This record gives sequence, C-alpha cells and structure tokens, in this order.
Amino acid sequence: MRIVDIIKKKRNGNKLNKNEIDFFINGYINGEIYDYQASALLMAILLKGMDNEETTNLTFAIRDSGEKLDFSKIDGVRVDKHSTGGVGDKTSLIVAPIVASLGVKVAKMSGRGLGHTGGTVDKLESITGYKTELSNEEFIKQVNDIGISIVGQSANLAPADKKLYALRDVTGTVESLPLVVSSIMGKKLCADDDVIVLDIKCGSGAICKTVDESKELASLMVDIGKKAGKKMLALITDMDKPLGYAIGNSLEVVEAIETLKGNGPKDLTEICVILASNMLYLAGKGSLKECETAVRKSISDGSALNKLVELVDRQGGDKNLILNPNNFEKAKYKCEIYAESNGYITSIDTEGYGNASLMLGAGRNSLKDKIDYTAGIILNKKTGDSVNKGDLIATLYSNTNSFENAKNLFINSTVISDVKPGEKPLVLDIVK
Amino acid sequence: MRIVDIIKKKRNGNKLNKNEIDFFINGYINGEIYDYQASALLMAILLKGMDNEETTNLTFAIRDSGEKLDFSKIDGVRVDKHSTGGVGDKTSLIVAPIVASLGVKVAKMSGRGLGHTGGTVDKLESITGYKTELSNEEFIKQVNDIGISIVGQSANLAPADKKLYALRDVTGTVESLPLVVSSIMGKKLCADDDVIVLDIKCGSGAICKTVDESKELASLMVDIGKKAGKKMLALITDMDKPLGYAIGNSLEVVEAIETLKGNGPKDLTEICVILASNMLYLAGKGSLKECETAVRKSISDGSALNKLVELVDRQGGDKNLILNPNNFEKAKYKCEIYAESNGYITSIDTEGYGNASLMLGAGRNSLKDKIDYTAGIILNKKTGDSVNKGDLIATLYSNTNSFENAKNLFINSTVISDVKPGEKPLVLDIVK
Repeated sequence: MRIVDIIKKKRNGNKLNKNEIDFFINGYINGEIYDYQASALLMAILLKGMDNEETTNLTFAIRDSGEKLDFSKIDGVRVDKHSTGGVGDKTSLIVAPIVASLGVKVAKMSGRGLGHTGGTVDKLESITGYKTELSNEEFIKQVNDIGISIVGQSANLAPADKKLYALRDVTGTVESLPLVVSSIMGKKLCADDDVIVLDIKCGSGAICKTVDESKELASLMVDIGKKAGKKMLALITDMDKPLGYAIGNSLEVVEAIETLKGNGPKDLTEICVILASNMLYLAGKGSLKECETAVRKSISDGSALNKLVELVDRQGGDKNLILNPNNFEKAKYKCEIYAESNGYITSIDTEGYGNASLMLGAGRNSLKDKIDYTAGIILNKKTGDSVNKGDLIATLYSNTNSFENAKNLFINSTVISDVKPGEKPLVLDIVK
Repeated sequence: MRIVDIIKKKRNGNKLNKNEIDFFINGYINGEIYDYQASALLMAILLKGMDNEETTNLTFAIRDSGEKLDFSKIDGVRVDKHSTGGVGDKTSLIVAPIVASLGVKVAKMSGRGLGHTGGTVDKLESITGYKTELSNEEFIKQVNDIGISIVGQSANLAPADKKLYALRDVTGTVESLPLVVSSIMGKKLCADDDVIVLDIKCGSGAICKTVDESKELASLMVDIGKKAGKKMLALITDMDKPLGYAIGNSLEVVEAIETLKGNGPKDLTEICVILASNMLYLAGKGSLKECETAVRKSISDGSALNKLVELVDRQGGDKNLILNPNNFEKAKYKCEIYAESNGYITSIDTEGYGNASLMLGAGRNSLKDKIDYTAGIILNKKTGDSVNKGDLIATLYSNTNSFENAKNLFINSTVISDVKPGEKPLVLDIVK
C-alpha cells in the first residue's frame, strides 16, 4: 500500500476502506507518512468528503492511535458531556457536580481553550491550588470516593488527533465535517464512559452556524458513539449569544457557583438542567421528568454546590473561594461600555465577544500562550434586551490597561437598533 | 498576507491574484511556506482548477524563481522545440541539427528522462565523451560559432519547479492542467528564445490521452508563451505507437543518424520535417512550403548530418560514432519476441513499451538512478503491420540477462488480432 495511491483515490472522489484509513493514521503517527502527504489527503477529504463509514473508521483509527483509558475499576455508570465550544459556556462546571451529587460517576478529562472559546481545565485552574493533573490511580480512586474528578487531557490520548489538528490549523483544512467529527469523537472515545451527552453549539459563536449543519454534525457523532457502544444523545443549543453573562475564566467560575446556588442566569440554568437531566436519564436514573425533578432539587438543597466544593477541595483547590466567590482575585483595570443609542440589542456576533475576551488576556491564540484568569467580560445586556442611551452594556476586565482593540471589537459585535429580535428557544433540536 | 488564507481562498473555489501567487512561490522557495502548506494548496488547485490568468501568473512566478538565461549575445533568431515526452521520441536529435544547418540558432537546454519517457540529454550522453555541461560563455560562443549547442538544464533555472515537481510526485498532485502547464512553461521560458514549437504528444504513451486534452494543454501553453513575447506554435502528434522503431538511448541515436542520412522510418522522418519546417517558418525563413523544401534538402545533401557531427565533435563527443554508428557499443544480451498468432498489430500500449524499456535499464525510476545506454528495444512491427505466427516483432536489449518482466510487459502491451486498425495521421492538430 502506498500513501500516494490513497491520496489519489480520495482525490478522485472514491471511498477509502478501513485498511487504507488505518494505514494513513498509523503511518502518520510513526513518521512514515509525511506532513505534506497528510495535508494533501486532508485537503482531498475536505473537498471530496467522506461517507459515514469512512468517518467512523477515521474516528476509530484516531481513537486507537495511542493510550486508552480503562474505567472498569470505577463502580457504577460513568457519564460525560461534551460541548463543541462556545462563548461563556461554563456548563461543565455546573452539570458535572449536579449529576455526581445524584449518584452517577463523572470521570472527566477536559480540554484547554483555544481561540475564542474557553476550556473547562483553564476555568478550574483559576481556582487557586486546583491540580488538573492526577495519576490514573488517583483519578479513579477519587471518582470512586466522591463520584467526580475533572482533570486535563493526558498527552498520550489520541496522538493522531494532536498531530492532525496542528496540521489542519496551518493548511486550511479545519472546516470539514468528517475531520471535525473524527477529531472530537476520536479523542472522546478514548475515555471509558457508558453515556455521552453532546452539546452541539449553533450560531455566531460556534463552528456550526446553522441548525442544519449542527444536525448533520450531531447525527454523525451520535451514530459513531453508538457504534462504539455508548449511549448517546445530542442537544443542539443556541450560541447566537453568549451563555450567561460572564466570559473569562474566574468570572465564569463565579457565575457557575451562583448557578449552583440557584441564583444563575435563566438561560444558563435551563441549559444545565436539560443537559444534566438527559445525562441522568441515559444513565438509567428514571424517567426524564424524574431526572429533571432530581436535578432541580440538587440545586435547591445545596447538594450540587457541595459536590463542587468537595471536588475542588479534593484536587487541592481553595474551597473557600467556592464558598465565598467574592474573594476571587479581580483584574487591575476595567472599561465600561455604554449604549450609544436607544433601542434593542438586535444581535450579537458572539465570536466577536469571544475574541474581545481573548484580546483582554482571557484566552490563548496558541497552546503555548499564558492565560490571565481574571480577564474577561461581564455583560449587562444581551440579545433581546432593551437599552437606553447611556445604559451600561458590559464591563471589560484586564490586567493590561489597553482596552482599545477589545472595546472596538466588542462595540462592532453589538447591533443596537429599533428591531426587537424574536425569542429563540435554548434547545434548537435533539438528536438521539 | 498569510498562506493559510490563500489556501482557503483556492479551496473555496476563488481566483488567486498575481500577488497571492507570487507570495506562494517566493515564500515556498525561501522556506517561509512549508511543504505541507504547498501540498494542501496544490491539491486545492488540482480539485478547484485555475483559469488562464492564474496559470499564466503561476508560470511566470515559477520562471522568475531563479536564474534566467540571457541570449542577447547570440546573433540571429533563436528557436527551440519542446516535446511533452513520448516513447522513442528522438526528434530533437534530428530537428535541431536540421534547423541549425539552415541558419537559425539552436541554444538548447534539455532534460533527463524519468519513468517511461526518455530525455535528449541522456541520449547525447550515450555518445562517448559528449559533455552536457558547459559554462554560459562556452555555450553562447558555441552557438555563435556553429549555430547549435545542446546541454543539460542548469540547476539554477526555475528552482520553484524542481521543488514543486518533487512534492507533486509524492502527494498525488501531478495530474493537473495548470500545474503541468506552469511546470513545463515555467522552465521553458527561462531560456531566451524567439520561437518555441511545442510537440504535444497524444495517446497511450503520453500524459494527454485524448486530442481534446492535448488541445486544451496546447492552447494554454501557446497562449502563455505568446504573453511572454514568444512566437509560438503547437503540433499535436500521435503517441498511440512509439515514434520510429528504436527505444533506448544509443539505439535511438543510431536511428536519428539514419534519419539524418535520409534512411529513417517514414513516421519519424515526417514528424521531424514538419517540426523543423514550422520552426524555420516562425523564425522568418520563408513560407512554410519553402521551409519544407529547405529541410528536405538539408537531409538529402548531408548538411544536417554534418551539423550533428560538428555538434558532437565540439562538445567533446566521438564523432566517429556518428559517422559509423555500427561502432556504438552493444548490450551483452538480447531477447527476441515472436508473434504467437497471425493477424495485425491492432494496438500498442505505448507506455507499456516505455516501461519495458525502463526495466531493461534504459530509463530511471528516480533521478538518482544510473542509465544503461545500450539497453532498449528495437521494434520490427508496429500498429497496423500484418504479422504471421513466428515473425520477429521486437528484440529486447539489456546488460542484465533477466528479460522475464520486460518481455511479459511487452507482450501484454501488444494486441494482435484480425482487426486491421485505421490509419491515423501523424499530426492530429495544430494550435497557433
């Protein structure tokens, strides 16, 4: 078998079989296939597509390219959720303690943020002392002891994905459905969960801009997860505006704590309740209705918040920050943004908000960049809200006193007009 | 400007402008753009195409990527011909001395053979002592003194083409019209000729298999040559069978000498007369009819052969070999192939003949391979000839006594049946 023949086959629009896909991934990982051959094949895949079987085989080849986790020593059902990434998306920080407090196991490996979207691991690291690296044994023991652990991704999981992702980024081959799906699911399936609930973000702040795109992505991911023996479900949720009002690492942790106390924003609270209910339902914890009731109770009786405190404490974090979120360190500088006219927030370019937050120091352009955990944005108004000239729309936070670019981007990403936009449901569709 | 944006632009089917193409070629040559980015762009070009303007800009960028030749010190009109490569194509060895003997200048840089097609420089090197490397000064002085020089291509000409060609070969991006055209013309336009006559081979032994493909290629090359200020013409000639009866380096030189003596095969002689006449016509040496008369006379009166003797002698070769071609060294072993049935040679897979010759040692798979100058094939029958069982069809020559693979390939490439094929014209079309 020669890689050049595999490239030509895909280039000519033909289907690759499992052996050819395995040959590509294995050869690429062990250095027998070069970056320049991989990128030519990636471009051919982007332009000629892959069918479901090819995408499944590519996903499994990526999953099998490195270490896989063994959760067999964890007692009980293991559930996970995965979001395709949005702006202000702190749902994992809320949903994971909720479901763990209700008796299903959460052994979660999370990623770091890149570009305009944040990562759960970065958010947790904004809590002083929180360790995101545990040994496999510590990790599993903790899940058995307290029902939950959230750590960073091991370097040995799905190395093919790391190599391919870095290559796609510099060769114009990111925007391909089979490549996106096999990247996400190839990593996700390295973990040994029974249930995976996907949160496919849809809108101006997400990789999928339309519901149709999101459904296509969701169907493929659900299908592949089922083929790997998982119980799967995907929610397609709105990302035409940020989730909640906080963007930026410690700012989002504070909002997550408030939500676990029952004081969270309505949109964030509802999405978290729906996600958690579906996770519990698929884990066999009763009807969806019963699960929802249990979720709301875990918030109202404080057991979900207690689970977060327990998690943070066990992984070395300062639990007093969770109990007294006012004690989180604040950024040195802030910049308030006021409405320049009367009307409504007609629309938001959510990716623009994400990039403004990135400019303030809350995110990273490359995985080597350092994050300023206190930087970010607190919104006062979102899409649909009415504003009067002079109203505070948002406050930008940063430790460098140069707000010009972020402020301009924020303002340009906010459309104020006479038009009051229609209400959009939070969950746009469900794919089972 | 970022290469990833240029890749995305082409990937999305949009037209690249001159600045973007120049940025790519310059960046690739100086190492700022990586192989893996170039191969992604090449695949996008292969799948999304380039229009004439893009292909022209790419050609000029390749031409301008290194040294260019200055022929201004050569007195008189300079003409060149270029063939897209075929099997048994020794026309340059015949045409160049003819036109030089008639007073136009031939300052020719030729390539080496690769795969199933031969190269003029390899054929000349089968003449003992012939030097294919001259300094620029020697080269120009020789052209002024005797009207002709044929040397190998300088390493500094069109370095972008060398780099791109090597990359295309291993990334499945060879078969693209804009990439083929810009590669050939990018190199060709480094030379400082007034007239270029192209010989676009068409058929089973050529890169273009159909007349339509050949015409598309020819039109684009003629168009680009004219934009670079050249007088251009392209002949589309048949390569559904080998040209002449000799395949392999010294075997082809001997056939070229016989043709210059007026004893050549009819097809080879006629193609050479047509090529030479058109070169002289474009060089302003009279009407096409007058040029043809002059060409035939240069063969019959021996002046063309004398010019070859002069060329070989001046470049250090043994001129006695030209005067007594029987003295060329012979291969140690031969293998005769006989007809196994009565009928006609209905068709030939010419590329198969080329590859059989390659297996015998006459060609190279990679540019590092050494050539056996005496190896090759002498045909006794070609497409259209009637054969009786037991007739000698061909003799294979090699210095390794293992003919099995080459013999099988040769036999499998020869179709003998009751069907006498129709006569095909030698010149299928002319593009001006």
